Amino acid sequence: MYIENINSPNDIKSLDIEQLTILANEIRSGLLNRLSKRGGHVGPNLGFVEATIALHYVFNSPTDKFVFDVSHQCYTHKMLTGRKDAFLNDEHFGDISGYTNPDESAHDVFNIGHTSTSVSLACGLAKGRDLKGEKFNVIAIIGDGSLSGGEALEGLDFASKLERNFIIIVNDNDMSIAENHGGLYNNLKALRDSDGNCECNFFKAMGLNYIYIPNGNDIANLIEVFRKVKDIDHPIVVHINTLKGKGFVPAETHKEDWHWHMPFDSITGDDLFTRDGEDYGSMTCDFLIKKMKADKSVATIVAAVPTNIGFTEDKRKEAGKQFIDVGIAEEHAVAMASGIARAGGKPVFATHSSFMQRTYDQLSQDLCINNSPATLLVNTASVYGMHDITHLGIFDIPMMSNIPNLVYLAPTNCEEYFAMLDWSIEQNQYPVAIRIPCNGIIHTDIPVDADYSTLNKYKITQQGQNIAIIALGDFYQIGEKLAKLISEKTDSSPTLINPRYITGIDAEMLEKLKKNHTVVITLEDGILDGGFGEKIARFYGTSEMKVYSYGLKKEFIDRYAVDDILRENHLTPQQILNDIF
Amino acid sequence: MYIENINSPNDIKSLDIEQLTILANEIRSGLLNRLSKRGGHVGPNLGFVEATIALHYVFNSPTDKFVFDVSHQCYTHKMLTGRKDAFLNDEHFGDISGYTNPDESAHDVFNIGHTSTSVSLACGLAKGRDLKGEKFNVIAIIGDGSLSGGEALEGLDFASKLERNFIIIVNDNDMSIAENHGGLYNNLKALRDSDGNCECNFFKAMGLNYIYIPNGNDIANLIEVFRKVKDIDHPIVVHINTLKGKGFVPAETHKEDWHWHMPFDSITGDDLFTRDGEDYGSMTCDFLIKKMKADKSVATIVAAVPTNIGFTEDKRKEAGKQFIDVGIAEEHAVAMASGIARAGGKPVFATHSSFMQRTYDQLSQDLCINNSPATLLVNTASVYGMHDITHLGIFDIPMMSNIPNLVYLAPTNCEEYFAMLDWSIEQNQYPVAIRIPCNGIIHTDIPVDADYSTLNKYKITQQGQNIAIIALGDFYQIGEKLAKLISEKTDSSPTLINPRYITGIDAEMLEKLKKNHTVVITLEDGILDGGFGEKIARFYGTSEMKVYSYGLKKEFIDRYAVDDILRENHLTPQQILNDIF
Repeated sequence: MYIENINSPNDIKSLDIEQLTILANEIRSGLLNRLSKRGGHVGPNLGFVEATIALHYVFNSPTDKFVFDVSHQCYTHKMLTGRKDAFLNDEHFGDISGYTNPDESAHDVFNIGHTSTSVSLACGLAKGRDLKGEKFNVIAIIGDGSLSGGEALEGLDFASKLERNFIIIVNDNDMSIAENHGGLYNNLKALRDSDGNCECNFFKAMGLNYIYIPNGNDIANLIEVFRKVKDIDHPIVVHINTLKGKGFVPAETHKEDWHWHMPFDSITGDDLFTRDGEDYGSMTCDFLIKKMKADKSVATIVAAVPTNIGFTEDKRKEAGKQFIDVGIAEEHAVAMASGIARAGGKPVFATHSSFMQRTYDQLSQDLCINNSPATLLVNTASVYGMHDITHLGIFDIPMMSNIPNLVYLAPTNCEEYFAMLDWSIEQNQYPVAIRIPCNGIIHTDIPVDADYSTLNKYKITQQGQNIAIIALGDFYQIGEKLAKLISEKTDSSPTLINPRYITGIDAEMLEKLKKNHTVVITLEDGILDGGFGEKIARFYGTSEMKVYSYGLKKEFIDRYAVDDILRENHLTPQQILNDIF
Repeated sequence: MYIENINSPNDIKSLDIEQLTILANEIRSGLLNRLSKRGGHVGPNLGFVEATIALHYVFNSPTDKFVFDVSHQCYTHKMLTGRKDAFLNDEHFGDISGYTNPDESAHDVFNIGHTSTSVSLACGLAKGRDLKGEKFNVIAIIGDGSLSGGEALEGLDFASKLERNFIIIVNDNDMSIAENHGGLYNNLKALRDSDGNCECNFFKAMGLNYIYIPNGNDIANLIEVFRKVKDIDHPIVVHINTLKGKGFVPAETHKEDWHWHMPFDSITGDDLFTRDGEDYGSMTCDFLIKKMKADKSVATIVAAVPTNIGFTEDKRKEAGKQFIDVGIAEEHAVAMASGIARAGGKPVFATHSSFMQRTYDQLSQDLCINNSPATLLVNTASVYGMHDITHLGIFDIPMMSNIPNLVYLAPTNCEEYFAMLDWSIEQNQYPVAIRIPCNGIIHTDIPVDADYSTLNKYKITQQGQNIAIIALGDFYQIGEKLAKLISEKTDSSPTLINPRYITGIDAEMLEKLKKNHTVVITLEDGILDGGFGEKIARFYGTSEMKVYSYGLKKEFIDRYAVDDILRENHLTPQQILNDIF
C-alpha cells in the first residue's frame, strides 16, 4: 500500500512508474469506497486519476497552482494533498466537500462548482503572478464538456495574451454530463482522430500553442509531456484524451448515468437505494413529450443537464428534433428560446436555479426586453435543493423576480405546477418562469386555475382574520401548518394566501386585508434580501399593518442539513408562532 | 436623388449597381446629417452602408430575417425600411431609436443593444422556422468586436447543429470599440491576410461552412456573394472586410474616437460642444494611474469600454501592462479579477451598470463565494446614466446587492467616491463594488471617512427628529433638498443619513431612530423592487415606524427625459413633501 504513506504531493515524487501505477489502483479503490457509499461524481474522478498523479509528480503544488474546472474531478487531488482519509476511512467522509475548497487545503486555490470558470480564474493567477514579478506554473484543468460555456471561450480567447507561463490541460473524454453538443466537439474529434495534427485546430485558431497526448490514462506518457511544458514561458494547451469512468466497468459503459451517481454496489454498480414513486423530473418530461407530440412548435431546451427534467436518452430520442441540448451554454439557450418564441414556436428551457444565474443578461436583454413568450423551468430552486455552496437554489428570487416583464410563478403543489406550465406554453404574452416544486410531490383535490394571464392575482385559500399568512411556493405547506397552529392557539382562523406570482403585488387584495387584519406573515423559499417578502413589507410600509418576513439569510451556506437551516432562520411553524405571540 | 423614393426594400431592387452606388452616397449624407447633429454610432454605421444595401437587394425582408448584433450599425437598414425621414429631415430625428426596434418596423425583429446576442437570437428564429416547417432566410450580422463575448461564442458553437438555412455575416473592420483583443483576432487577421484561405480557421473549427469577401464596401461584390448564399440549406459564415467609418475622413482615421460620437461639424469633424470641467472618467483614470505607478500589483481591467473610466489611448500606453482590456468579455474580466486578487494583486474592473449584468454568475461564483478582494467600478449606474431601453443603469442594485459577501458602496460626492476607491483597492477582506457618481461632480469640504472596513455603518449627516431621510448615493442630494423643505415646513429638522453601504442594514442606527422618529424616507437611484428601501421597510415591518420608499418603478424605459421619469416616480423633493404631509 503506497497510498497510506501519501500525506503531501512530495510523497509521490520518489515513486517510480510501476509504483505510481499501483498507487493509481489504490486511489481508484479509495474513490470507489467513498463514491459507492456516499454517491458523487464517479465518471469524472475515475477518468482523471493518472493525470492527477502525473500533475502532482511533475509540478510543485501549492507553489504551482492547479485550477480544476467544476472541480468535480478533484478527488484524486484531494487524496494526494493530505485528505486521503476522507476516501479510505468511512468515518472521515464528512471531512471534505466534493469540490476544491481553500478552507480544506492550501492546495485548493478556489471554491469552484460551476463549469467553464477555470481558464479565466487561472488567467487571473497568472496575471497576478506576472504583475508581482513572481515565478510559478499556473495550470487550468478543464473538461471537454466545459469548453462550450461562454466564460471558458472568453478565457481561451484571452489566454494567448498572457506573455508568460500558462498551461491549459483539456481533459477530453468525449462527454459532457450527457453527450457533447456543438461544432467545437467535431473539432476535438478531428484532433483526436489525427493525433492532434488535423489542419483546422480550434485552440490554434484561438492563438494558443498546442500539444496532444493520445493516452491520457498512461502515467509515464503524461509525466513526459508535463515535464516538457513545465516552466514553459508562454501559454499552451495540452489536450489529453482520457476515458471517463475508467476502471469501473459500469461507469465506462454508461457514461452519462455515471457522471454523478447515488450510492451503489461497488462490484456490480447496482443502486443501493431504489427510487420509487413519482418525481418531478419524469413527470415534467412526460408532460412535455405529450405537448411536443400534439404540437410540433413546442420545443424543450436544456443546457447539458437533460435529466434535470427527466430527459433520459430514450426520452430524448422520443422527442427528436423538438428536444435541444445546447451543451453547457445557458446564455445561448435563453437567447435561442427568445428567438424561437419570436418565430412563433413554444420553447421551454429548463435548468437548475444555480445555473440560471449564468444567463442573467440574456434573461433581461434577449428575453424580457423583447417580451418573448418563452417558458423557463427553474429546478432545485429551494432550500430543499442542492446543498453545496456552489449549487445553492436560494438566490433566484432576487435575481429573476426584479427583471421587468418576467412573470415568475411559484406553484404550491403538483396540479398547480402543471397547470401553470400548460398555461405558460400556450400563452403568447409574457416571458414566464416557473419554480418547479422541490418539497416532494404534493397533490391536491382542490381545483387549480388554468389561466394565469391576469397577473399578480393572489389566491385566498383560507379566509380568516387578524393574521394573514402569505406563503409562497414550496413554503406554502409551512404556511398551512402555521395557520393550523394559530387557529389552535387563538381560536381564530388566520387568512392563508397562495400568492402564486413572485413578480408582483396584488395591491387590491393587500389593501382589503387592512380591514380585518393587523399582521401579515410572508414566507418564501429563498433569501429574504431582494425577495418577495420585502415587496410586501414595502407595500405596507406606510400603514399600520405589521409585516413579519420569513425566509433565509443572505449568505453562502455549504453542505447544510435542511432542518438546521430552517431552524436557524426561524422557519419552523412553531418558531414563527413564538415570534408573533 | 434615389433615397427620396425608397420607402421599402423593394424600391431598391430595380436599381442597377451604379444607381445603388449613388444611393450609398446619399445614405452616407443622410447618416452624417443625423449623426453630426444628434451624435450616435458613427463608425459602425458608415462602414456598413454598402453591405446593408446589398443585403436588402438580395434578401426579402421582412420575410427573410436580419438580426443585427448590438444593432448600432442598423441606420442604413432603417433608411431602407421606411424610416429615411429620421435621417434626412431634422424634425423627424426623434421618430426612431438608435437600435433595432420591433415597435418601429416589421423589418426589426428584436430590440437589441447589448453585444454578442445576434447569433443565438437568430439561431432561435431558424429553429422556430424549422419546427414550424416554414421557409425563409435567417441572417445574423455580427461585428468582429462582438465575437469575443461568451454568448456569441456559445452561439457559434451551436450554429453548426442547425440543419437548414442559417447565414452569419461577420462584419470585420478590425476594431471593437477600441482595438480588438484576444487570440481570435489574430485568426481574423490571418484570414484577411490570406483572402480567407489560411489553414487554421476559427469558424471552420466551430464546424461552420465559410466564405470570405475581401472588399466589404463593394456593392457588386457583396451582391454576388449574398446571392450565392441566399436560400442555402445549411449554416455558413460570410466573413466580410469593411472599413469602419468609411466615407468620413475623421472617422476613418480615428476609429475609436468615432465609434460613438457627440454632435460634430459634418465637414471637419470638430466637436460642436466642448466638454470642460471635471469628469469622473478622467479623474478615475488619473487616480488609477497614480495608484498603478505607486504599486505594480494594481491592475485596471476593462471590457472593451476603456474610456468609460477615461483610459484613452495615451493613458492606456501610460499604464502599460497594468492596464488590461479583455475585449467584450465581461465574464472573463470578473473571473480574472478574482484570480488576480487571489494571487495577491489589486484588480479594479470597471464597466457600465448595464454591462455588469453580463457577468452575474461570475460575480456570485468566481468572485463572491471566493471572497476575493477585487474592486468593481459600476459606471452610469443611475437614472442619470444612459437612456436607451437596452442600456439602463437602474437594475444593478437588485442584481448585485443581494449577492452574499459583496460590499456594494454608494458614494454621495467626489471625495467620498475616491476615498472608497482608495480603501477598496488597499483592503484585502472583501469583494467591493462602487457606484461611480452620475449626478455631476459634487465636492464637499466635510471630511469623508478613509476606512470602510466596518461594514454597514451608515452616517448621520444631519441629526434631527421625527423624520429620518436615508438617501443613497446619487439621490443623497434629493435627500438634502427634501430635508430643507421639511425644515421650512415644520420648523423641525429631519435627520439626514448617508447610508453608504447598499448591501446591508445598520441595525443599531435604525433601532435608535425609533426613539424620536416616526417616519423614515428612503431614496435610491434605481428600481425599488429588490432594492435598498425594501430592506429598510422589512427591518421596520414589525415596528410602529412608517417607511416611505422612493425609487423607480420596475419597468424597461426607453429614451426618457430624466425630469419626466423623476416626476412620474414622485421623486422631486416637493412631491415627496406632499406625500408625507
